Amino acid sequence: MSDRLDIAIIGATGYTGIELIRILASHPKVRIAHLAAGSQAGQAIGAVFPALLGISPELLPDPFLHPVDPDQIKAKAQIAFLGLPHATAAPIAAALLARGVRVIDLSADFRLKNPATYAAWYNHEHPHPELIPEAVYGLVEWAQGLPEARLVACPGCYPTSVSLPLVPLLKAGLIAPQVIASCASGTSGAGRSAKVSQLYAEVAEGFRAYGVEQHRHTPEITQTLSLAAETPVRVTFTPHLLPIDRGILATLYIQPKPGVDEATLRQAWVEAYGDAPLIRLLPPGAQPDTKDVRGTAIAAMALTPAREEGAPWVVTCAIDNLNRGASGQAVACLNLMMGWPLIAGLPLVALVP
Amino acid sequence: MSDRLDIAIIGATGYTGIELIRILASHPKVRIAHLAAGSQAGQAIGAVFPALLGISPELLPDPFLHPVDPDQIKAKAQIAFLGLPHATAAPIAAALLARGVRVIDLSADFRLKNPATYAAWYNHEHPHPELIPEAVYGLVEWAQGLPEARLVACPGCYPTSVSLPLVPLLKAGLIAPQVIASCASGTSGAGRSAKVSQLYAEVAEGFRAYGVEQHRHTPEITQTLSLAAETPVRVTFTPHLLPIDRGILATLYIQPKPGVDEATLRQAWVEAYGDAPLIRLLPPGAQPDTKDVRGTAIAAMALTPAREEGAPWVVTCAIDNLNRGASGQAVACLNLMMGWPLIAGLPLVALVP
Amino acid sequence: MSDRLDIAIIGATGYTGIELIRILASHPKVRIAHLAAGSQAGQAIGAVFPALLGISPELLPDPFLHPVDPDQIKAKAQIAFLGLPHATAAPIAAALLARGVRVIDLSADFRLKNPATYAAWYNHEHPHPELIPEAVYGLVEWAQGLPEARLVACPGCYPTSVSLPLVPLLKAGLIAPQVIASCASGTSGAGRSAKVSQLYAEVAEGFRAYGVEQHRHTPEITQTLSLAAETPVRVTFTPHLLPIDRGILATLYIQPKPGVDEATLRQAWVEAYGDAPLIRLLPPGAQPDTKDVRGTAIAAMALTPAREEGAPWVVTCAIDNLNRGASGQAVACLNLMMGWPLIAGLPLVALVP
Amino acid sequence: MSDRLDIAIIGATGYTGIELIRILASHPKVRIAHLAAGSQAGQAIGAVFPALLGISPELLPDPFLHPVDPDQIKAKAQIAFLGLPHATAAPIAAALLARGVRVIDLSADFRLKNPATYAAWYNHEHPHPELIPEAVYGLVEWAQGLPEARLVACPGCYPTSVSLPLVPLLKAGLIAPQVIASCASGTSGAGRSAKVSQLYAEVAEGFRAYGVEQHRHTPEITQTLSLAAETPVRVTFTPHLLPIDRGILATLYIQPKPGVDEATLRQAWVEAYGDAPLIRLLPPGAQPDTKDVRGTAIAAMALTPAREEGAPWVVTCAIDNLNRGASGQAVACLNLMMGWPLIAGLPLVALVP
Repeated sequence: MSDRLDIAIIGATGYTGIELIRILASHPKVRIAHLAAGSQAGQAIGAVFPALLGISPELLPDPFLHPVDPDQIKAKAQIAFLGLPHATAAPIAAALLARGVRVIDLSADFRLKNPATYAAWYNHEHPHPELIPEAVYGLVEWAQGLPEARLVACPGCYPTSVSLPLVPLLKAGLIAPQVIASCASGTSGAGRSAKVSQLYAEVAEGFRAYGVEQHRHTPEITQTLSLAAETPVRVTFTPHLLPIDRGILATLYIQPKPGVDEATLRQAWVEAYGDAPLIRLLPPGAQPDTKDVRGTAIAAMALTPAREEGAPWVVTCAIDNLNRGASGQAVACLNLMMGWPLIAGLPLVALVP
Repeated sequence: MSDRLDIAIIGATGYTGIELIRILASHPKVRIAHLAAGSQAGQAIGAVFPALLGISPELLPDPFLHPVDPDQIKAKAQIAFLGLPHATAAPIAAALLARGVRVIDLSADFRLKNPATYAAWYNHEHPHPELIPEAVYGLVEWAQGLPEARLVACPGCYPTSVSLPLVPLLKAGLIAPQVIASCASGTSGAGRSAKVSQLYAEVAEGFRAYGVEQHRHTPEITQTLSLAAETPVRVTFTPHLLPIDRGILATLYIQPKPGVDEATLRQAWVEAYGDAPLIRLLPPGAQPDTKDVRGTAIAAMALTPAREEGAPWVVTCAIDNLNRGASGQAVACLNLMMGWPLIAGLPLVALVP
Repeated sequence: MSDRLDIAIIGATGYTGIELIRILASHPKVRIAHLAAGSQAGQAIGAVFPALLGISPELLPDPFLHPVDPDQIKAKAQIAFLGLPHATAAPIAAALLARGVRVIDLSADFRLKNPATYAAWYNHEHPHPELIPEAVYGLVEWAQGLPEARLVACPGCYPTSVSLPLVPLLKAGLIAPQVIASCASGTSGAGRSAKVSQLYAEVAEGFRAYGVEQHRHTPEITQTLSLAAETPVRVTFTPHLLPIDRGILATLYIQPKPGVDEATLRQAWVEAYGDAPLIRLLPPGAQPDTKDVRGTAIAAMALTPAREEGAPWVVTCAIDNLNRGASGQAVACLNLMMGWPLIAGLPLVALVP
Repeated sequence: MSDRLDIAIIGATGYTGIELIRILASHPKVRIAHLAAGSQAGQAIGAVFPALLGISPELLPDPFLHPVDPDQIKAKAQIAFLGLPHATAAPIAAALLARGVRVIDLSADFRLKNPATYAAWYNHEHPHPELIPEAVYGLVEWAQGLPEARLVACPGCYPTSVSLPLVPLLKAGLIAPQVIASCASGTSGAGRSAKVSQLYAEVAEGFRAYGVEQHRHTPEITQTLSLAAETPVRVTFTPHLLPIDRGILATLYIQPKPGVDEATLRQAWVEAYGDAPLIRLLPPGAQPDTKDVRGTAIAAMALTPAREEGAPWVVTCAIDNLNRGASGQAVACLNLMMGWPLIAGLPLVALVP
């Protein structure tokens, strides 16, 4: 019998699934008690991802993938991570909550507070609007109510990269409520499904924008920034596809309000994040590189004032889309749900080179 | 004796040099009569770049690298391409012009019309300010006076990617004189010199901004856009380093003037570029990929209106930094200097995958 | 009316298809009269591959993809290139030959002379064994009967990389009839179909062998080398997957017969290839890089004697798998079929960097 | 005061240095008490490698780089890791040993038992031949005397990838004493010094052999295999440069002795490594991928019998060149020197994707 918390990972064979397993396999207080995956049930996880073969049996006593069955999950685990596609996740979440299993959902299903917005961007009615109000939005440095939460909606990867640097500035009322977010993500953000557009030979040695003015993370970013600003924030969001495995760089253009200087903006960051172990505020002149946060839960951010009076200022923020932008942030939420240290089990040192 | 024009390439061992040789080796009207390179003189170009071994001796009768000697260049060629570092190029250009050799300069030395601006950004006095007035800025679709030009200043790679899509819109007075240029370039833009920051293991699997608010292409972009707009244009320019060999994507944020709609902007592009063989205007919904213009002189561009009233619109433009952004554009200038078809010898089909 | 030869490309949307179009768009004697592709019929090729948008309408008068219909092909073209999967190609080839259209087949269907070997390795009976005898194996420097050929079987990519360096040595009886071929290919060799194993995030930053002792190119290599040696040659062939778009490097281990020295082996290469414009024999000490032949029809090869008496010697050969290993070699076959210069239209200068 | 062992890392700014710091920052029994680096002394390690900024001050109390001074090292640490170039390492090792500091040397200086062999391959006399006899060769599964060792010579990266799979087979006398090792390494193997040949734009999208029949790891491989076989083993070793950050794949061709079957070879592996936590024996049909061991100390190996009687068999082994091939193996040696569990602090789960 283990004195560790038993958790389940549902949707274990996607990229967020493998990243959850990788992180939790080093977590001091968790045991991975149950893995589920619809399409590959019956296989051992190590047969799907040999990278995971090194996990100790104590931490992963049952390495086999099971069908997605709420009763079975309930029998095995107290908390379940859901790494499922949107619309698939919500019904499973509902079934698990009904059985008393707390849910940390990595899908988009519970991020948007307005079900009409969800319906408009995801092209179907929300499957369980009654659960939306209680879902805690898990942007960890700003999340409220995690210790009691039954249902956590983990933020999207792009929204994390945009919101972390901007929320403190908007909350403090220091910048205008219009921002431009020119973001670029590694290919793992597109998931682990077979698509011609994601083949190595299509992606390597190229760079392109996609989903311009249409990406589904737009309303999530708008919601978070507007809540922080307590006024509607206009967001122009342009995602790009990078020929790298993982990583997001957000390049943000902001307009400080009249009279706001660099020191004031930096001070707002320090007040918000001075003690935050997962935030790295870079000194003037330095720029974050996605490579320097690869495999970690760190968000590294920099601020550069405009050369010219009145011009936009540049904020950059680098995260690992699978870790800080998904599974690492989900584990941070778990830590706060359980009253553990925020960084328990989280990788903080990047794999370089 | 050849009925082709004899040209010389000075600084043949940099990446713009090899690209010039690659392009000119397919040019129907040119013979590469002379190669010069300070540090590697004495070697055959094929020993430095085996990729060039396949060039026919008729088109490259002397494959050896010579010291940089204006008299020797004069004896061999009628036109010289200079692929030299800034400040090194200007004195060689002056010496060649004095000997009656026309010069197509790929350095930054003659791009800026104001020598004080040059001094401020390049940290030294301009070596030959007296030559600046006659230098023709070789943004080919907009260049004036190329047939008679003695001295051509080829645009920088980033300025080309930003100016081509915006000049028509600014000339027509359709957008506000403030633009944001969030650009990303492949590593060949950093040149072929040994630097730790450009090692494979430092660049691969990463993405970062650099030179934020300090990049030397800023005044060049500002100059070109302001001349087009006939009013000062405020430019916010943020370059990024991409883990690819070659390619630039410019993601530009513009503000149409009140009452200007999408059709009007597209019409300005069509009027400027409808017959331009090196410009590709993408249909609504499509986005340019650097990979689709790799190795070509094509600039591919797209326009996306804002979802929200009053928000910035998104313009994207993809070029090959070494080709359209340097050597290919230089050859296009040569073509116009000689009265040849604009596309003579220029690659128009990309190497994909 | 064109004085160019009208050709058709069947299976135009695979990677060998796009490479054929790219090459033929620069060919001085050919017009691409007809494109066919089962699944994407109705689209313009430029909508599938924007890289091809720069082709002149004179060379590609009909850019639309048609269904695969032998009568229609016959009406449009005198020679057809088939870039279809094995087993699909043979029936189309038969139908075209019956209509008097000469066929250059890039599939595996007519490479193996023994239909039983074909059946054993491809797991089905050969669809048209009666056509095998007349098929000319298009390893261009060694192919016989191309001027009269109705049906050409283009060699596989790996077999090309292995056979070119070894055929002269085996023909001259200089090496033992046992070879080891440790080869690595870029991902385009796996084709343009959606597979999880070929996603960017699966391939990048990795390297692995695959199909060890089971790859279907094994009997083809064995056949070519044995015919050259006039005795059975034992081949150990190990393919690997490289995280690059295109390129194959074959690293071959051979055993010179007693008394055979380096000069003798080099002399055999010079005799075979001294005037061959598509073969590059590297000087002692140099090694071929796939990057230096990227996008070209060149095969570059090197020979290194063993340090120790009696140990295997090392031969390396670099080609572009899509060009020299497929489409470029197919065009070289066309050139010989038509009595044109071998290199007509073929790219010989690599895209570097 | 810490109850952890204080260690020093000398040559902390190379790629083996950063990997040592990354690993040791997770080690349960170690404190990184001292960092030294000649050229960058005075800087904080986090300024050189932002990836390391996340290390807790308890584990890295002094993050500044110091000059290389044996007295200072002695004052701070009980064991020193040397990540220095060959010939530089030996004198520092001698000075540290004289001061009672145990040394784990990652250079080549103490790997070869015969100083004449060292002189022949490294082009200078061995600086401290008197120390060679006591140096323990740290191929961890086979190393003898580590608990008492004062001086450990960590194996080279290629030798590790070749020796681990072959030593058990040679020790058991199951294969002939001639092997071919066709190996490929990521670019971090070339170190973190500025070289044109290692620039991103030179390495990406290419693949080439280098140092054929001349690589300095050859005598080390020969020594290890010959000691295992108790007879001279003839090694043909061909290294290649891969466009990846880290990883080595060894593809080995072996000849089982007459009558030796697959089960017997597998049994030899199981006997040698059945309980070895850092060795992964793959089942028939599976192949190791460098990506699946990236960032770990695992060596994954596979065996494939020849299709044809009498032909060579294929053994493949994947490691991370910086971890299992350098710093991870060094930490494993430390663990055995201290009587700790072999895997203490070692990463066993790879970063995928």
